[in-house]
Amino acid sequence: MKTRRSERLVDMVYYLAHHPHELITLGFFTERYQSAKSSISEDLGIVKKTFMDRGIGLIETVPGATGGVRFIPMMKTSDALLVGEDLAAAIANPERILTGGFIFLTDLLSRPSVLNRIGRMIASRYAKENVTAVVTVASKGIPIAEATAQYLSVPFVMVRRESKITEGSTVSINYPSYRTNRVEKMEVTKRALKKGDRVIIIDDFLNGGGTMQGMQILAEEFGAKVVGNCVLCELHRPDEKQLGQIESIVRITDLDEQEKRVQTTLGSFFDHYKAEGLSE
Amino acid sequence: MKTRRSERLVDMVYYLAHHPHELITLGFFTERYQSAKSSISEDLGIVKKTFMDRGIGLIETVPGATGGVRFIPMMKTSDALLVGEDLAAAIANPERILTGGFIFLTDLLSRPSVLNRIGRMIASRYAKENVTAVVTVASKGIPIAEATAQYLSVPFVMVRRESKITEGSTVSINYPSYRTNRVEKMEVTKRALKKGDRVIIIDDFLNGGGTMQGMQILAEEFGAKVVGNCVLCELHRPDEKQLGQIESIVRITDLDEQEKRVQTTLGSFFDHYKAEGLSE
Repeated sequence: MKTRRSERLVDMVYYLAHHPHELITLGFFTERYQSAKSSISEDLGIVKKTFMDRGIGLIETVPGATGGVRFIPMMKTSDALLVGEDLAAAIANPERILTGGFIFLTDLLSRPSVLNRIGRMIASRYAKENVTAVVTVASKGIPIAEATAQYLSVPFVMVRRESKITEGSTVSINYPSYRTNRVEKMEVTKRALKKGDRVIIIDDFLNGGGTMQGMQILAEEFGAKVVGNCVLCELHRPDEKQLGQIESIVRITDLDEQEKRVQTTLGSFFDHYKAEGLSE
Repeated sequence: MKTRRSERLVDMVYYLAHHPHELITLGFFTERYQSAKSSISEDLGIVKKTFMDRGIGLIETVPGATGGVRFIPMMKTSDALLVGEDLAAAIANPERILTGGFIFLTDLLSRPSVLNRIGRMIASRYAKENVTAVVTVASKGIPIAEATAQYLSVPFVMVRRESKITEGSTVSINYPSYRTNRVEKMEVTKRALKKGDRVIIIDDFLNGGGTMQGMQILAEEFGAKVVGNCVLCELHRPDEKQLGQIESIVRITDLDEQEKRVQTTLGSFFDHYKAEGLSE
């Protein structure tokens, strides 16, 4: 039975929203809706224009016999800046200060609405980098990595500090921790990555940078290329040269445990975002 | 500027898809689209019918001055059974067998497309239970819990086996592990749950049930009510009486490490699903 345009649009948008970055043939839609190619093309034109106007993302058309369309979720720079400012304000709440100069982030990392916004924002920044995996370290990095991986439609890889039998055989590295001044270990299942993978590395907190550097070394161990490094919140970082370029969404500029004071600003993530985000 | 129906539908569906279980007023949409209430109501009627026909979920109308609409993602029982059968077949692959009678699940737990289906399926099963949090244990339970929490639009709570300074003050319990015959510890930040919360407990693997029981005890410690217990894959379970009702999506009926043989079947999750899922 032929489907009416309004019903096609409703189903099509829901389908695209749950299949980002996937190439979908026109044939898939003509069959799904028992409708002519010309009708489907018109539908997609409407979706494309609305997605662009509303800052939802791009509908890319891939021509040719094996062609189709691809939905690339993106965010306008102005929307991303609002997300960043919300996060910077939330993190500046002095009640978040923990003993030892740490910041409580667990509530933010457990709310799907927050995670969706962060994930979409990061995915948007790296949308054109042909990312094939998102790498993070258990446990606090996982929520952001999973949300980002969803918008990029790629697997996320969970590195661990201790091996678990359930990972099968693993690849492990030792790396220097700037903060503890010790050599730490991290490992990941052998089946996690492969040569030629293009990965972004994600973590919740940058405090010295050893963990991020460890993940970089581990990714390179597989012959993967690191195309992005991104943390939610940055406190201290060592020498740029040691670390390569790590982008932070929020930067803590002042943290005084005694006086219960936190000051934050937007991090370097947004400098790069402005160049890469969806045009206004 | 007034928006055309087709554009309203495109934006509305994308918006609803990313705000499940949230009450959205008609006024929100009339303002967003500069359109009359009657037009918005007609739009929502189209969305409602298509979401039902396509097995996407329900659009619930909440009447009255503080009313609006709410999108409840659900899955048809027939679709859920297909997801379950795919998982049962994937888990029955003998290459997954690890030393010690464990099963490698990491690849499934790292693919957003798989996680989305599992999350939507579990959220659908508990859609009417007024769930306020999803509880899991780090690290392997997190991906499923996050995906489920997204479809239910509630926070997910990450229990840990070792305390981390970044959790602030914690509540901890000791519980018996049937598998290791030892007393184990688990803890969670004090800010995780509150009295009256209605939680579902999720994990990737049931092998004795101690971990699931530990999470139950921990949830009850907060005065929360456990309204569901769900694991992706069940191998052994002890006495029903000790554990309460735990639903599994896939049950391993035979596992022979020497002979490299795994046999699986659909778990008890689907018995309950049939009663609760979206009508066909």
